[in-house]
Amino acid sequence: MLLKDCSFIITQDDKRRILKDYSIRIEGNHIVEIAKGIKGKGIDCRGKIVMPGLINTHAHLGMHSLRGICDDETLFNWLDIVNREEEKLSMNQILRNTEEGIIECIRNGTTCVYDSYKFAPERIKVFERLGMRGFVSSTVTKPHHLAHVDRLIHDTKKSQLVKPIVAAHSPYRCSKEILESIRDISREHNLMRRIHIAETEKEVRDTKKETGMTSIRYLDKIGFLGKRTILVHSTFVDDYEIGLIAKNRSSVSHNPISNMKLGSGGVAPVVKMLGRGITVGLGTDSVVSNNDLDMFEELKITCLLHKHHNKDPKCMTYQTAMDMATLHGAKCLGLSDIGQIKKGMKADLITVNMEGLGPWNSVVSNLVYCANGNCVRDSIIDGRLVMQDRVLQKI
Amino acid sequence: MLLKDCSFIITQDDKRRILKDYSIRIEGNHIVEIAKGIKGKGIDCRGKIVMPGLINTHAHLGMHSLRGICDDETLFNWLDIVNREEEKLSMNQILRNTEEGIIECIRNGTTCVYDSYKFAPERIKVFERLGMRGFVSSTVTKPHHLAHVDRLIHDTKKSQLVKPIVAAHSPYRCSKEILESIRDISREHNLMRRIHIAETEKEVRDTKKETGMTSIRYLDKIGFLGKRTILVHSTFVDDYEIGLIAKNRSSVSHNPISNMKLGSGGVAPVVKMLGRGITVGLGTDSVVSNNDLDMFEELKITCLLHKHHNKDPKCMTYQTAMDMATLHGAKCLGLSDIGQIKKGMKADLITVNMEGLGPWNSVVSNLVYCANGNCVRDSIIDGRLVMQDRVLQKI
Repeated sequence: MLLKDCSFIITQDDKRRILKDYSIRIEGNHIVEIAKGIKGKGIDCRGKIVMPGLINTHAHLGMHSLRGICDDETLFNWLDIVNREEEKLSMNQILRNTEEGIIECIRNGTTCVYDSYKFAPERIKVFERLGMRGFVSSTVTKPHHLAHVDRLIHDTKKSQLVKPIVAAHSPYRCSKEILESIRDISREHNLMRRIHIAETEKEVRDTKKETGMTSIRYLDKIGFLGKRTILVHSTFVDDYEIGLIAKNRSSVSHNPISNMKLGSGGVAPVVKMLGRGITVGLGTDSVVSNNDLDMFEELKITCLLHKHHNKDPKCMTYQTAMDMATLHGAKCLGLSDIGQIKKGMKADLITVNMEGLGPWNSVVSNLVYCANGNCVRDSIIDGRLVMQDRVLQKI
Repeated sequence: MLLKDCSFIITQDDKRRILKDYSIRIEGNHIVEIAKGIKGKGIDCRGKIVMPGLINTHAHLGMHSLRGICDDETLFNWLDIVNREEEKLSMNQILRNTEEGIIECIRNGTTCVYDSYKFAPERIKVFERLGMRGFVSSTVTKPHHLAHVDRLIHDTKKSQLVKPIVAAHSPYRCSKEILESIRDISREHNLMRRIHIAETEKEVRDTKKETGMTSIRYLDKIGFLGKRTILVHSTFVDDYEIGLIAKNRSSVSHNPISNMKLGSGGVAPVVKMLGRGITVGLGTDSVVSNNDLDMFEELKITCLLHKHHNKDPKCMTYQTAMDMATLHGAKCLGLSDIGQIKKGMKADLITVNMEGLGPWNSVVSNLVYCANGNCVRDSIIDGRLVMQDRVLQKI
């Protein structure tokens, strides 16, 4: 496959080079050549920006049919209403929702999503069918929820697209024993593990009441932190805890829109985390707390929120946000072969229509501050064209 | 003109009714009938939402070519760089920029914009040519800048589309004498007047040092407040000042993205203002501090910012944000005949493509939290079709 004469290529390589009028040749699932004037038939990318596909490090696609059922509610009412509606979802509905969610991801320029919900082994097939790269987990709150893990590992062994994660819900819905089991399974099978953590002040207060420690300190104490750990939200985290996350080489999934919409009032200390060398990816969370799956929005709001919170427009640049949604996203999920456009990397790319976004004083600025998911025209995942000119190719 | 079988009509009438499968008949520049099954040829609006065009209460379209020249900079560096670049803009460039800005507004669903920049009389013609409803002003900092006002009043007398405003820059760039002149011209000619106010802590501090009063108190003292006054930003405003704004029946233009991006650190107390009955419209500000002209983004971020700031998801609902961008926007600019879809109102409407935004558990929620400017398909301003299927009709 050939992407011809790309007006701009955002490489996200070590020098963050932006190439003008280069072409990209893909063989199998890899990028094999980036050069000017490569001959052959291909997708005409004049008037388009080619960039790494965006990586969403936290979603619950299975909730897609619940979008808009409960907005503008206080958190505990929200939880009650949403949980009640979730109970009613059949497996078939959840699989349909997962399909709708993946389609929305692809149409908005996401080429890899970490998706946690019920029926993980069944959801894998939806990812494979639509050609979407994904990490899947079933959220664990009770011991019997761990029963799916072996099957999940078995079923994804040969997949080029889907990998499993073991996922604890949270310190308030998982006992110490379950967290330790998840830690051990993760170590034994070399799987990433994830947990919703420090999302609200109440959680941190309750964890302290129960364990004598704040949320991140508690995870450190029981050996849950580590390089395989993805900490979702990490909103209410103090400086000492940032140190613990850094020391353990855990990564963070930052979900600014969801945190703002639910009115938790906190801001994950992302600027400090990045300063300590912590990997921080971006995530949308579910369509019930966002309410869409457009990572371009997440890019812009990440910049706005941290500039606002720190009263410092320099503290979160558009380039940092772009890095979080690509390089950090990949690293967050334990991958080193996506998130960049470079010879030898897997071909996970999108094209963005430049129409209506000019002038082009700064290409990355326009992508972060002006583009949205509807500007995406084509998507290539693992070397396969899954969307061309906004038409999905596999459904 | 006929909009046939609209899947949903967001009327924004007193009951905020949402009509299913109704049609809208327009004659001249007015809505004359809203009913089911009106016969005749027209635009097929199945699969589309019809809603009032969004009203942008603060923009500087003349800066359009400067988008992306200076992001992620501290405010005073930003001002230096931007002002230096603005000095270089010729009248022709400013008129081209105004055209680009209007096109971006139309493509993103805005049907009325208040635009302040140099060369107001010349800019009027660009609005007229593109069929855009607008309020224009030239920003005044020196006495000789007032020379254009008579011509502006004269040139807009017969216009259905464009009205003038007299615009003071700010308390730090306008002397008391100039502010008083603007006040008097506004009263004499029954024109709206506007000022950038209380945008930064520094401004409030400096105004207090110079006048002994904070920004809004100072405007009240010199009689600048009043029902014709639009207060842009109003970020650093205390409770007493909210009372002054309410008592004087002044209105506020809230620009959340610009305020966040420049890192002023403040949040206009919009929830309190609305609680006191103040009219609060939304604005984008310029493409140098936003960086686009998509009012749908402003809707979502208004909700996110105030929920976050007040730690209360209920304090700013999607319906309130929608009201601000339509009903309040119109009132802010002194109009009572746009901002609603109702028999007898002027026909300023847009259609929004429903594809990819479902499920439709809540129509207004999806418009605020999921839609963006690229979802807009058609735009009718003053009864004329200015964009059909995303193609501008007048250029």
